[in-house]
Amino acid sequence: MDTRPIPTASEPVPEPSAARALELLRDGKRFLVCGHSRPDGDCIGAEAALSRVLGALGKSVEIVNPDPIEARFSYLAESCTYRSFRGTLPEHDVAVLLDFCELERTGPMAPHLARATSKKVVIDHHMSHGPAWWDGAFVDPTASATGLLVHRLARTLGVPLDAAGAKGVFTSIVTDTGWFKYSNTDAETLRVASEMVALGADPNRIYAALNQTRPKIHPIFVGRLLSRAKFLAEDRLAVVDLPLSEGLASEQLDSDEVLDILRSVATVEVVLYLRELSDGTCKLSARSKGAYDVNALARKFGGGGHKKASGATLQGNLDVVRERVVQAALAGFQPEAIEGAAETSLR
Amino acid sequence: MDTRPIPTASEPVPEPSAARALELLRDGKRFLVCGHSRPDGDCIGAEAALSRVLGALGKSVEIVNPDPIEARFSYLAESCTYRSFRGTLPEHDVAVLLDFCELERTGPMAPHLARATSKKVVIDHHMSHGPAWWDGAFVDPTASATGLLVHRLARTLGVPLDAAGAKGVFTSIVTDTGWFKYSNTDAETLRVASEMVALGADPNRIYAALNQTRPKIHPIFVGRLLSRAKFLAEDRLAVVDLPLSEGLASEQLDSDEVLDILRSVATVEVVLYLRELSDGTCKLSARSKGAYDVNALARKFGGGGHKKASGATLQGNLDVVRERVVQAALAGFQPEAIEGAAETSLR
Repeated sequence: MDTRPIPTASEPVPEPSAARALELLRDGKRFLVCGHSRPDGDCIGAEAALSRVLGALGKSVEIVNPDPIEARFSYLAESCTYRSFRGTLPEHDVAVLLDFCELERTGPMAPHLARATSKKVVIDHHMSHGPAWWDGAFVDPTASATGLLVHRLARTLGVPLDAAGAKGVFTSIVTDTGWFKYSNTDAETLRVASEMVALGADPNRIYAALNQTRPKIHPIFVGRLLSRAKFLAEDRLAVVDLPLSEGLASEQLDSDEVLDILRSVATVEVVLYLRELSDGTCKLSARSKGAYDVNALARKFGGGGHKKASGATLQGNLDVVRERVVQAALAGFQPEAIEGAAETSLR
Repeated sequence: MDTRPIPTASEPVPEPSAARALELLRDGKRFLVCGHSRPDGDCIGAEAALSRVLGALGKSVEIVNPDPIEARFSYLAESCTYRSFRGTLPEHDVAVLLDFCELERTGPMAPHLARATSKKVVIDHHMSHGPAWWDGAFVDPTASATGLLVHRLARTLGVPLDAAGAKGVFTSIVTDTGWFKYSNTDAETLRVASEMVALGADPNRIYAALNQTRPKIHPIFVGRLLSRAKFLAEDRLAVVDLPLSEGLASEQLDSDEVLDILRSVATVEVVLYLRELSDGTCKLSARSKGAYDVNALARKFGGGGHKKASGATLQGNLDVVRERVVQAALAGFQPEAIEGAAETSLR
């Protein structure tokens, strides 16, 4: 998941930039389509859809990402080829960058893209923080997913999406809306999802591919973590940790479900998950379901993310790190509402 | 959840019955709107929407169900009043029955409804098995939710839904599609959901109301159950049980999440959950994610449901019942594929 902030307020890219982007997409012949490091479902879904649109316009298209795609997205790879960067970029006259607007998010590809003489087009729903380095851009921070922007673009270009493109857009949408649960799920999101289903995206099959292909250890991992949960601050804060001594190779395991289950408790407003790593650091994942800003919390420890989902990496062993993070988290609640919280001991 | 079969094949109710239903809705003055026992989100969402539609037409409407609604649906009760049956029906000239078509599903209300001289209209998406006892009916077993039928009806009647009605239809849809995950999630379902959001249904708020208001014991319960999971038949079958000795009052706890997590394992095709009750019986919940028919399995023990979600109540203590159910479940796999499964001991 891309955890950089997706602001709710829009700062639209000036029209000329969008017009120029459209011109480049119409006039270009050889396209390079790029995503960010560890490309998520929004990124590669948008890549799938855009490559079908450009293909329908008779362009040549190569998709190259800094990292390979996860196996669960293999249904998208049936209709387009996802290459991983191997030191050189293919020849191209237009590079389209999807789901990010900071070049460094392409990792080792960044210097190559910066040196390339090709024109650059950005399609993204994140807020841009630096100066515009691209030639053209479609950016709308109010769009729930980058795939939604590709859908708008296909309409503007007059290219109907095929079934493969529809699966791409649908994958984008469900990835970035938490399967239609997050507050970015608006009427356009559901309407476009409906169109994609009519075009051949099968919600049940895509759900199974994305969420029902876990390893056998997953339920054991979830159960073990839940058994370690502690509730603080009158049950407004849930804390769960995974010490190295538990011996679970947590990198390959998905903890999102654990955080969701803890967040499902009526009183819980904030969930903290601390995972001890073998390099002497701990990884923090923080989730909020209300007004509590976990982005502000994560920033105190050099991390960041969204207001409702953030993370950070902290130096130190689990006991020390947990104490620091929990104290900081408790301080973030309204003081009058957590009387007695300071007395609550975590251990 | 209503676990009776929702067939995929349609056997449409003859047109005259739908025309008569429309006539009764247009001409009636005092309406009684009824749901089934333990009304679920589809049932009460459809009731909310229909009561708004009838209200907009200037009718008087009373909603009466055999049982009270769950607290998490209280956002629907802000705009309409859900009464529980207390021995007598209010005066009415048309009774509309939502989300069922067998009168006995109204429990203690059934004899009263049968005796009432009022006209009866059924709105439902289940297949009718008995003779038609109603005066008019809108039945479509291919519709993902009864709320979707109320939406169609509102269009036919030319009554635009208001925000309260939209929340009702949205609640119906998300309840019966497993929040857009099940195979009944079609283009119409998502399109109508989009319209409902445009009219004022807030997906994120409704999700929070329905799924983030659990008791603190919920994560502990989920963790405890997951720690008891066993995998059989080359990990195609997952079995989890809850003996009385665990001391968890499981009636108030939602085990759906546990079954979903077990079903998320790639190899798992069938999940069985057995819960020991104090009256000397055990409750079976069975889930399938593929072709395996758990309805056929549950029927062997006097239960039933859908092909992918079924249940039964069995006499006997947990050890005895589990052995019977597991053996029957193993027999349901293709024989060539579970060589050696018989040797696998569960305990």
